[in-house]
Amino acid sequence: MDTIERSRITPAEAREHLVDYVHTIDDGALQDWPGYFSDPCLYRITTRQNEARRYKLSIMLCDNQAMLFDRVEAIEQANVFEPHTYRHILSDSRVLNRGQSSITIETSFICVRTMISGAQMLFASGRYVDELVRVDGAARYRSKIVILDSSEVDTLLAIPL
Amino acid sequence: MDTIERSRITPAEAREHLVDYVHTIDDGALQDWPGYFSDPCLYRITTRQNEARRYKLSIMLCDNQAMLFDRVEAIEQANVFEPHTYRHILSDSRVLNRGQSSITIETSFICVRTMISGAQMLFASGRYVDELVRVDGAARYRSKIVILDSSEVDTLLAIPL
Amino acid sequence: MDTIERSRITPAEAREHLVDYVHTIDDGALQDWPGYFSDPCLYRITTRQNEARRYKLSIMLCDNQAMLFDRVEAIEQANVFEPHTYRHILSDSRVLNRGQSSITIETSFICVRTMISGAQMLFASGRYVDELVRVDGAARYRSKIVILDSSEVDTLLAIPL
Repeated sequence: MDTIERSRITPAEAREHLVDYVHTIDDGALQDWPGYFSDPCLYRITTRQNEARRYKLSIMLCDNQAMLFDRVEAIEQANVFEPHTYRHILSDSRVLNRGQSSITIETSFICVRTMISGAQMLFASGRYVDELVRVDGAARYRSKIVILDSSEVDTLLAIPL
Repeated sequence: MDTIERSRITPAEAREHLVDYVHTIDDGALQDWPGYFSDPCLYRITTRQNEARRYKLSIMLCDNQAMLFDRVEAIEQANVFEPHTYRHILSDSRVLNRGQSSITIETSFICVRTMISGAQMLFASGRYVDELVRVDGAARYRSKIVILDSSEVDTLLAIPL
Repeated sequence: MDTIERSRITPAEAREHLVDYVHTIDDGALQDWPGYFSDPCLYRITTRQNEARRYKLSIMLCDNQAMLFDRVEAIEQANVFEPHTYRHILSDSRVLNRGQSSITIETSFICVRTMISGAQMLFASGRYVDELVRVDGAARYRSKIVILDSSEVDTLLAIPL
């Protein structure tokens, strides 16, 4: 279990963490994905309709590092998915909250999915609500909530967003 | 009628105004949309073909606060549109002009539309040409021109861009 | 043949060069496109599958200014393409390498294509890997590699990306 340091995180540092995070996914380096989170943590994918109704339903939910690693293993070992890659495009981040030892930002994004066949589609749009803390000197997600605009969730949702 | 202050507006301030503007629309808080403009103002949606030919045709045109509020009321009261939401993604802004009391920037954007059914589409792409002035200490749009790349304008254009 | 100056290039300067570059293409000012490169240079479009396999195959390859100008002339004189325009949206840039007289950055992007009929599509996604040097006081691309996510390359690829 990580010790959270009493140390401010700047908006620029939070943004850099997000940029690295999406590049890691887009590059297919999924084994590095859990390292962006603290332990314990909250990684949750939901929809804006669920959020608006304050439903606690999640499309995906992990609350510690072991679950994140299980998720990666499942993706890499299961061969039920046609290989595909993502490309995230980020719009500007806005600071929602700044504390002595955490920062919360929100960021609109879209994600394009490319199948191995070459077929491409706009796969997802929405916003990230990210709370970061400092662990061992580095920024980590204590909580990352992915709020998708569409409630029509593709059954191919395998790679984390 | 607003008094425009003799006060410079920085590119960062103009950008922040734009980021807040698109979040307001994407969050569905349309009642706050007119507040981004000065009074009088110019809000115009046109196409790049019209612009290239210097046609004065507009897809939407409002030149004062009352018209902006009328627009919001029409959207909220009319039930002719299937409910939908937008997600704007902004590319970098460029400064086109800086004066003693105004700044003009341009910004490429895309907008994804999500219907209540969950269906999503790339709804619009284009660029904003925004002139900002300062009123009561805060940045406001004196003029916001939305130049769409496509002249095939969806008849569902209801929510402002 | 250009003389490369021993002068650092900042990430901000590299980013500004990229923003101007994509605006030049999106505005249709193709005659200005070669001016973004040094001479000699490398402009290459490839796919992530080719890159992953270290294949040297290119979809487009130019290694000097004359070839870039030939490319522009071919596009402007040939009437085999239905007129269309691009809209690039850039995500954040990351610095890959900084030297005494060059910088290399990578940037995720998407590009929307609009036909004269008004039809729009998500045309390309991928990342730029750009090496910049200084020539006559200004930043120029010594190398610009466009790595497309999809290997299904549209035969309409005419305008540079």
